[in-house]
Amino acid sequence: MNNLITDVEGVLVGSVHDERVASGATAVIFEAPAVASVAIHGGSPGVRDTALLEPEMTVPAVDGFVLSGGSAFGLDASGGVMAYLAGIGRGYPVRSFRVPIVPGAIVGDLINGGDKNWGRRPPFWELGFSAAESAQKAFALGSVGAGHGAMLFDLKGGLGSTSAVSSRGFVVGALAAVNAMGRATRGACPYFWAAPYERENEFGGLGAPAKEVATAFDLELKSLKAANTTIGVVATDARFTKAEMKRIAIMAQDGVALALRPAHAPTDGDVVFAASTGRAKTAPDLRDLTEIGMLAAECFARAIARGVYEATSLKNSVAPPCWREVYGATVNRTGRR
Amino acid sequence: MNNLITDVEGVLVGSVHDERVASGATAVIFEAPAVASVAIHGGSPGVRDTALLEPEMTVPAVDGFVLSGGSAFGLDASGGVMAYLAGIGRGYPVRSFRVPIVPGAIVGDLINGGDKNWGRRPPFWELGFSAAESAQKAFALGSVGAGHGAMLFDLKGGLGSTSAVSSRGFVVGALAAVNAMGRATRGACPYFWAAPYERENEFGGLGAPAKEVATAFDLELKSLKAANTTIGVVATDARFTKAEMKRIAIMAQDGVALALRPAHAPTDGDVVFAASTGRAKTAPDLRDLTEIGMLAAECFARAIARGVYEATSLKNSVAPPCWREVYGATVNRTGRR
Repeated sequence: MNNLITDVEGVLVGSVHDERVASGATAVIFEAPAVASVAIHGGSPGVRDTALLEPEMTVPAVDGFVLSGGSAFGLDASGGVMAYLAGIGRGYPVRSFRVPIVPGAIVGDLINGGDKNWGRRPPFWELGFSAAESAQKAFALGSVGAGHGAMLFDLKGGLGSTSAVSSRGFVVGALAAVNAMGRATRGACPYFWAAPYERENEFGGLGAPAKEVATAFDLELKSLKAANTTIGVVATDARFTKAEMKRIAIMAQDGVALALRPAHAPTDGDVVFAASTGRAKTAPDLRDLTEIGMLAAECFARAIARGVYEATSLKNSVAPPCWREVYGATVNRTGRR
Repeated sequence: MNNLITDVEGVLVGSVHDERVASGATAVIFEAPAVASVAIHGGSPGVRDTALLEPEMTVPAVDGFVLSGGSAFGLDASGGVMAYLAGIGRGYPVRSFRVPIVPGAIVGDLINGGDKNWGRRPPFWELGFSAAESAQKAFALGSVGAGHGAMLFDLKGGLGSTSAVSSRGFVVGALAAVNAMGRATRGACPYFWAAPYERENEFGGLGAPAKEVATAFDLELKSLKAANTTIGVVATDARFTKAEMKRIAIMAQDGVALALRPAHAPTDGDVVFAASTGRAKTAPDLRDLTEIGMLAAECFARAIARGVYEATSLKNSVAPPCWREVYGATVNRTGRR
């Protein structure tokens, strides 16, 4: 176990970014089509091909997902991932054709200071293609892929991932690109809101502050334009129906509430995809569904904190500094890491 | 300010219960019709007249809400509240008629050991009528109304309420009937999950445990039958549209995630109504909407913890003991209250 979403058998992840543009894309590729759904709880979502993920819709499974920077321009990234998958013979069969199913969601990173004068054709289709091409079990966290250009109110955002195993052995994983409007910490301090759920010091092991900082409950916001969003994927090897994956997606959205303040605001585009690779041999029951949904929420909260914790600062950018730059030294001095 | 939802001008609350049945109802009455919506994030909801609360539906406002015990039988309670309101001339005009609009939601308390052999006619219509009749600014918390028969995995549930004021002076309040499948505390200990959001020792002022108890992350569930649910109302005096109240209802559902583990499970019927009385003179902007939604989530989380904290044990019932019975003495000895 690597504490990554790829601990779920059948899941691969690849990220690429363009430093000049200060944006990137992250592709999640399923080795075989995965039963999937989505929950959209933010007020300003940017998504592509998500209508088919509702339980009453016909397409049974997806080939992958893509998370991208670039605001709505980034929705091109799905096309790049589709082209890569079509090239290797993947896709939903339509007569002699195969149509890879790759829903996508974006974060708004236009205002991070990168060069967004890309001329006639935005870079996201190609970023999506390259991200899919590079997908594998091992992948980097922090300022990479869809998290490359991401930022919060006060800190650099990033890409985070975690996993967990349920009491009956089902594997659950989460992947989050964190570009929230508010904070992942309890005010201007290193302590993460998600701390109660942290495992093995995956985001510093700081726990809760001995004394709440004065700014903990201030409402400080990056932007009231729709330039915010936390998007991601949760996955499990338990074999579930599309309706059950919708339930897991809804529960996984609770991870946003456990990790960020505010959550699900009118100008947040919070989107969580949920996929079942069905590789586990045991058939899950209702208690397993409950537990896996709960673990999906907690994995997603941990992935958010970890994405911020693992981020590095961008050069030539107006994005705020990364957590390590602001808090790393202080924390080392106290010996709590 | 009384730290109750009735701190929002134009909101009244009344509760009644039947000790033999071990169930009850709580009516929320708006002095004038309130613009309202709903978010249903649990997997096993029991609701009445909620379709009209979607932003695209025509009826502009509601006269009240009712929270009731009794599982789906409790949906009769709306009829009782409607009859009371019709009697005092309230309601949506349809030619010469007036139709009071009173959406409702229920908690499943059939299995709490009360006498549910009510014969041909369940008691909930009458309980709804009486609850509406008794509605006023001051009201009791704990094992009253819709919280009378409520229970969690390990503790008695109850009715809780809180309020908050936004940075620009808008008032926000929450009311919750807590009958969750899991726990409101961090395992078998007195510490509430909602502790980071507590104000003025409203649920004991214990904060976080110095050391997590071993059971904190166990998944212990009351029931995998649909006998679980946390339902409630959030209200504000800020003047919002129905679509904006839908956003606030969605954000308020995050309070369930901040206060209970698990949240939004397949056999939870978590429903949150959100209403705007529009009494505030200032016009709210997008930042106010964000802040009020966030405060609604935090008020709802606090109301859940407070409902459990204020509960008293039931006589002649199989419901678990109340928080005070289990933890009250211990906590007093440590001098932390």
